[in-house]
Amino acid sequence: MNPFRYIDSNMKNLVSDLQLLIRQPSVSAKNEGIEECSKLVKKLLAKSGVKSEILRLKKGVAPLVYGEIKSKSNPARTLLFYNHYDVQPAEPFELWDDPPFSGKVKGNKVFGRGSADDKGELITRIKAVEACLKTTGDVPCNVKFVIEGEEETGSAHIEDYLKKYQKKFSCDGVIWEFGYVDSKDRPIVGLGMKGLLFVELSVTESIRDAHSSLAVLIKNPAWRLIEALKTLRDENGKILIKDWYKDVVPFSKTDLDIISKEPFDEKSLKEEFGVDSFVGNLRGLDAKKALVGGATCNIAGIVSGYTGEGAKTVLPGTALVKIDFRLVPKMDPKKQVMRLKNHLKLKGFSDIDVKVFHGEAAARTDPSDPFVTQVKEAADESYGKSIINVSNAGTGPMFSFADILKSPCISIGSTYMFSRIHSPNEFARIDLLKKTTKCICLIMEKFGRS
Amino acid sequence: MNPFRYIDSNMKNLVSDLQLLIRQPSVSAKNEGIEECSKLVKKLLAKSGVKSEILRLKKGVAPLVYGEIKSKSNPARTLLFYNHYDVQPAEPFELWDDPPFSGKVKGNKVFGRGSADDKGELITRIKAVEACLKTTGDVPCNVKFVIEGEEETGSAHIEDYLKKYQKKFSCDGVIWEFGYVDSKDRPIVGLGMKGLLFVELSVTESIRDAHSSLAVLIKNPAWRLIEALKTLRDENGKILIKDWYKDVVPFSKTDLDIISKEPFDEKSLKEEFGVDSFVGNLRGLDAKKALVGGATCNIAGIVSGYTGEGAKTVLPGTALVKIDFRLVPKMDPKKQVMRLKNHLKLKGFSDIDVKVFHGEAAARTDPSDPFVTQVKEAADESYGKSIINVSNAGTGPMFSFADILKSPCISIGSTYMFSRIHSPNEFARIDLLKKTTKCICLIMEKFGRS
Repeated sequence: MNPFRYIDSNMKNLVSDLQLLIRQPSVSAKNEGIEECSKLVKKLLAKSGVKSEILRLKKGVAPLVYGEIKSKSNPARTLLFYNHYDVQPAEPFELWDDPPFSGKVKGNKVFGRGSADDKGELITRIKAVEACLKTTGDVPCNVKFVIEGEEETGSAHIEDYLKKYQKKFSCDGVIWEFGYVDSKDRPIVGLGMKGLLFVELSVTESIRDAHSSLAVLIKNPAWRLIEALKTLRDENGKILIKDWYKDVVPFSKTDLDIISKEPFDEKSLKEEFGVDSFVGNLRGLDAKKALVGGATCNIAGIVSGYTGEGAKTVLPGTALVKIDFRLVPKMDPKKQVMRLKNHLKLKGFSDIDVKVFHGEAAARTDPSDPFVTQVKEAADESYGKSIINVSNAGTGPMFSFADILKSPCISIGSTYMFSRIHSPNEFARIDLLKKTTKCICLIMEKFGRS
Repeated sequence: MNPFRYIDSNMKNLVSDLQLLIRQPSVSAKNEGIEECSKLVKKLLAKSGVKSEILRLKKGVAPLVYGEIKSKSNPARTLLFYNHYDVQPAEPFELWDDPPFSGKVKGNKVFGRGSADDKGELITRIKAVEACLKTTGDVPCNVKFVIEGEEETGSAHIEDYLKKYQKKFSCDGVIWEFGYVDSKDRPIVGLGMKGLLFVELSVTESIRDAHSSLAVLIKNPAWRLIEALKTLRDENGKILIKDWYKDVVPFSKTDLDIISKEPFDEKSLKEEFGVDSFVGNLRGLDAKKALVGGATCNIAGIVSGYTGEGAKTVLPGTALVKIDFRLVPKMDPKKQVMRLKNHLKLKGFSDIDVKVFHGEAAARTDPSDPFVTQVKEAADESYGKSIINVSNAGTGPMFSFADILKSPCISIGSTYMFSRIHSPNEFARIDLLKKTTKCICLIMEKFGRS
């Protein structure tokens, strides 16, 4: 039996192992089930024939699961799979059709928080290695698994892990934790990630909530916050903070060439979210350029006062907003925080407290790297056709991997682009899980031979 | 024994009956314990010698407890006590030192949601009637109790009750549901109430939450709402909606005279809320004028996206804000809603949905009415010194009472001005409950004799 046949006949096992992973909640934002999930991942690796260990930094930091298997045929080439076992919070619970940690299968879909991001991706890689081992008794190249537990809160310690275990993790190429499949079932070969700066701004006007009749005299922190927020961004999404875009590197000719070739299903995207137009009325190439290289200032959450049912005439004491800024190459998160703080000060908002949750720089792999060709070929063979993407619109700690391991990083995977990751009713498509498992086998082969 | 002696020796009963009332949650905003509380009120009235009945309008409307007792000595004069048995929601629970419905007594204070607003006030009136009955076998005037269960959500049906039972409720004077006592223990004889317009504005940009990496394209409803909100009000509290102040009646000479005489403990108010300055830097007479006659636009609550702990990179689908506008005499709530809607339309925010929770006009009793003198004298006698107030900064359905029953309405009561009503750790002061019970006895006497 060859690995592909093995994968075809073992999809039931893949799905049930994915269900096991989903049923173990692992919400890093709430430190819920993290230890338990790391142990479960170690167990699944062992079941597939991969020896692993749980690495730790210090108390309070999520453990990292590290797996390794040496190749007898190509011991000189090492491929590293980067994944994460933690998931986003499942709120709002009431919008899920089934419980978020049920792992319910309906037709071609496995539902649940983490089904796609990132437990689905992880299972394809484990099962690809298993398929090689069970059918050939070997892997086509050395394989390393680096599976962290803090990705969804911003990978606060992956850099420390990479620095501490730089030698252990050394490799010649990194397959990124996820990869998207577009609306026409074409996998995206992703060469980059945006950076992220996540902050919380809060303001307190009075030491306690008051009856709202006092609003003639006592200041309202929600109004204060709104006044500050309005200075950050114009209605077309342009960030108004001084020098915010100063360090941004413009697209190269090659970048623009790849972007212009990249298909973009504008209609499907609009339909998925039920919208008529995009931010700033962007369309076509401009919308594509924004996805690849646009910086944002997004309100991820805002809250003040009474938000339950009915009316409550209260004057709240405090208000807070959570903002994520996506960053693009050469924007330094630390510098951008300073710019934000300076802006607030200059605009007279020194009373607004800025708490930085985390900062992450953007990263991109050179499109001319041979690793890009190997992954692209594997994707074309397993899916029919794949697409190169200069940078994903999302964020991951790719900068740290590229910088510390000195390896090219490429994302390729099984996540259907409308899988509702981070949202209610997240799902993974079983047909894509199968194709991606095969694709990972091909990548190992091509990479081992090179 | 005279009524005063009776009150002195029965304070333990008053406090334990108040505790009974507090321990029965009755949150109208959540329809929690409303039926149960109306029955408890009926029981307490009966215990004090007042025959009562539970009046109903239709399913879904909180019942109204109506009590009545005829005077043998002065059957021609009828005083009506207006109160409410419902309370504000107790959130945020975690800020309470004791459970909000425990009715815990510590020294001179009874704590709990509703201890002051309005169960404390209600108990003084019931106990004043009891004191007269138990010591003289009579009441000095006819007494009617109108105790509703929807005051904290805006008394949506009191007008219907007043219209339906106009004859039953007919009276010569109304004692309002509350009355404040200032920081120097002087009771306020209140002649008016502001109106209120409570609305919820909401906006939906996409049919589901998205991963925030899509913020380059998918619009964020929180930003949209903030843009709209910024057009409503300037940073000094001035409302920017066209013609918002058009119908406002300026203060009369008498009003200004009363306002300028009214003491105002600016320092204590600032200390209580830990603030250095007031909205628009108001001080002294200007601050007093604002409390009596200022219209506000207050954010009572705002929410969108993820508001839990930690970071979640989400792009929310919807955002909403709850706003209460305080209205002053001659502002018609219906007209003001139209002005708000027109404003949003004119400013290009037709996509923002406006839901009106309720509207209530402001009302004021003429300072020259003899009823004012009777109440003022009773308050001076029982407290040492009282203060006349042209209008409270808060809202109640005084306009409906004045308009339908054609009676002067005056507020007088036991609520210490820093009782934290509508906030965590609300309390009633036992010494003030006692003085107010006596004051109510005196009012009945003076009113019966007039």
